[in-house]
Amino acid sequence: MLDTGVAADAVRDSPQRPRPALRAVLVGLVLVVVPLALIVPLLGLGPDGGDSPASAAPASAADPFARLLVALPVVLAACYLAGRLARRAGQPEVIGEIVAGVLLGPSLLGLLWPAGFAWLFPPAVVTAVNTLAQLGLIFFMYLVGTEMNLDSVRRRGLVAATVSQVNLALPALCGIALALGMYPSFGEGVGFVPFGLFLAVAMSVTAFPVLARILADRGLTETPLGALALTCAAIGDVVAWCVLTVVTALARNGDPSAVIVTIALTLAFVAAMVFAVRPLLARLLSGLTPAATLPILLGGVMLSALATNEIGIHPIFGAFLFGVIAPRALPSVTEASHRMQSVTVTLLLPLFFVYTGLHTRFGLIGTDARRWAWCALIVAVAVLSKWGGTAVAARLTGTDWRESLSLGALMNCRGLTELVVLNIGLQLGVISPTVFSMLVIMTLVSTIATGPGLSLVARLRRAPA
Amino acid sequence: MLDTGVAADAVRDSPQRPRPALRAVLVGLVLVVVPLALIVPLLGLGPDGGDSPASAAPASAADPFARLLVALPVVLAACYLAGRLARRAGQPEVIGEIVAGVLLGPSLLGLLWPAGFAWLFPPAVVTAVNTLAQLGLIFFMYLVGTEMNLDSVRRRGLVAATVSQVNLALPALCGIALALGMYPSFGEGVGFVPFGLFLAVAMSVTAFPVLARILADRGLTETPLGALALTCAAIGDVVAWCVLTVVTALARNGDPSAVIVTIALTLAFVAAMVFAVRPLLARLLSGLTPAATLPILLGGVMLSALATNEIGIHPIFGAFLFGVIAPRALPSVTEASHRMQSVTVTLLLPLFFVYTGLHTRFGLIGTDARRWAWCALIVAVAVLSKWGGTAVAARLTGTDWRESLSLGALMNCRGLTELVVLNIGLQLGVISPTVFSMLVIMTLVSTIATGPGLSLVARLRRAPA
Repeated sequence: MLDTGVAADAVRDSPQRPRPALRAVLVGLVLVVVPLALIVPLLGLGPDGGDSPASAAPASAADPFARLLVALPVVLAACYLAGRLARRAGQPEVIGEIVAGVLLGPSLLGLLWPAGFAWLFPPAVVTAVNTLAQLGLIFFMYLVGTEMNLDSVRRRGLVAATVSQVNLALPALCGIALALGMYPSFGEGVGFVPFGLFLAVAMSVTAFPVLARILADRGLTETPLGALALTCAAIGDVVAWCVLTVVTALARNGDPSAVIVTIALTLAFVAAMVFAVRPLLARLLSGLTPAATLPILLGGVMLSALATNEIGIHPIFGAFLFGVIAPRALPSVTEASHRMQSVTVTLLLPLFFVYTGLHTRFGLIGTDARRWAWCALIVAVAVLSKWGGTAVAARLTGTDWRESLSLGALMNCRGLTELVVLNIGLQLGVISPTVFSMLVIMTLVSTIATGPGLSLVARLRRAPA
Repeated sequence: MLDTGVAADAVRDSPQRPRPALRAVLVGLVLVVVPLALIVPLLGLGPDGGDSPASAAPASAADPFARLLVALPVVLAACYLAGRLARRAGQPEVIGEIVAGVLLGPSLLGLLWPAGFAWLFPPAVVTAVNTLAQLGLIFFMYLVGTEMNLDSVRRRGLVAATVSQVNLALPALCGIALALGMYPSFGEGVGFVPFGLFLAVAMSVTAFPVLARILADRGLTETPLGALALTCAAIGDVVAWCVLTVVTALARNGDPSAVIVTIALTLAFVAAMVFAVRPLLARLLSGLTPAATLPILLGGVMLSALATNEIGIHPIFGAFLFGVIAPRALPSVTEASHRMQSVTVTLLLPLFFVYTGLHTRFGLIGTDARRWAWCALIVAVAVLSKWGGTAVAARLTGTDWRESLSLGALMNCRGLTELVVLNIGLQLGVISPTVFSMLVIMTLVSTIATGPGLSLVARLRRAPA
């Protein structure tokens, strides 16, 4: 609608320059006045508020939208800077963003500066952040769905299938073993079956998008190793999500017959989407501009998410499925998805990390040495089971040791996908906030260790045999 | 971050086809099961809820996000369809979207189907819609700022200046006259000065973006008439916004010295943005990719909006100013703004129209004939003062009668900008919900009449002199 055509001659930009002396005075005035204008009212809102003078300070202290206008840029800035730091350390930006989001929560900011944390995230802002985070998650899962390449999965055949099954089986079994150990202390309020299955899923997940980014960064995407890793991650994720569907159905319904109904509805929904909605969508969208396509895609994502929510599983499954069936052959769809991606990834995903962070309380683990011991055990089990399981599976199919170890390092990258899984578990009540925090730590450690782990194996490769 | 490179071979799309008989069974099953799966739980949530069976219905009735996933697609669909209808009627889509947004509120849906309206817009959804609408408005004003072409304003010189001043003066004076008449009945809780000034602004505003769209639709953008109209609208809007700043300062502070402080801070802020922030921003953004530019722009828009809010005027001024100073010569900025535009215009602006609609209650005007008389008078005064004032001013500068009348018809397009102004007035308490509703009606009528008015004048042009 803003494509007016007058923007063409907006490119030439010639500001008028007042005389130098006048300009200097203006600049000096501005450098004094404007910071004061910003700081004085903010002090009135600040953590030490109450002593502030009754100035011409506007009613922003009671204005939730103004508080949101403070919180959002802070989140953006923190994630942006952390992303740049991560890049400097040879990691993908998303790792820095995840860490920044978590640290803005009660785990660090809340511990070090509780008043500042409470001021930055009053209840109205938390509500807005949650809404935006959930929306962003849905759009993000749609985008992940659009990038899911099932053809390449089909083509890799036996090797990928074998590796991915073992790649999943070992961490899953270790997860169930962990659950057996943890359930007495941490399993209040939830049945053992969903708890155990959930830990199995949490151990086995690999973050497909983050992995893809790490491979792209290191130029490995087109190598056999990279392609194999992506394929295994894709297969593994699909299986893990299926199991998570069962966990969700169990947790939300409890009654086994209701669970079976939910599974049946899910399968019916998948079939409906693949066989009925997909061709209809392709017909509907063919010939439309990207501008006309975008509202249809947005509406479709939300309705699919609503459908899976109503069926009894999480909204993100519907969003993901819609992404898979969206007619990616149409350039208008690709363009519209691309436009959705910018705002989602830039503004909404950091809010999802903050949303995760707001529910993460390292303080819950506190000073309890037993809990930290469990935490350390979780991390160790997660890393070793993934690394070991993947490496062994790859070796069994004839890949050499070093490639197998590299693959294991890569598959440890749990990143963003794991956080999505963990949030589902927390929302459903399958895991407690304490276990959630421990698993977030595990996610951070295993994701941060991916790049360096890969470099370590590469160095081993260069060492004399 | 999702730019993984593997998407390249995602273009080839070859679904496997199961045997036809099996497919038919699946489709039949799906056509029965899936609608049931969707409808049964929704009935449990529906307006007649309470009688619904205690099925495996999920806890969505208490799940605000699920309700949002219902409301948002409804809004998108209504605005999309209304936009297409408007297009069929020869109007720009945005007019249909505005009407749809208003009608989804208490003015129509709420009147005809109160239970459905309450179900669609529970308090949590209204809160989310408000947040998204305010964010969308801020991003939209930024985008309007990026398209504001001050160079072309400077070049048109005397004609545009004269026309725009008279174009503003007559409606403004009529607005004040209206205020004198309306203040006794409708002016409770606000001083006459802000009330009168506000009505003056409301009468004089022209919707620059909608006007630009109408001109583009009719191929008039490059004609002298079109360029003149846009320039007058631009000048007029800048003046109107300045007056609105004063109104806002008056309404928020009341104390005249505080108002002067606010005006001074505003001028200082404008100077700071133009002389200090603009070159800094250009230096910061040069050489960055669009993906790296977008978070900086988003953060900058929000911080500028926050600054003007803290100064004592509305957030949109800061957002608009940031758009004006953003270095549009940089292709990365243009690209990033373009990406912001898609989601803003597609998802957030319709929510702004709904936000407007949620506060519009034609029922407040009700069956009171006196109020409807005032409403009709407002509409007549608005349309005639704009049309007449513009036509006379254009005629005085030598434009022929028919072009002058066409210009008058065009300048009556108040559209979206007027809704922004009206919402500010309502938020500040300068106008009551009743007056707000009347002015919304005036906006709808004058905007809808723009295209037909232009066609009417065109027909007069073809009639024998």
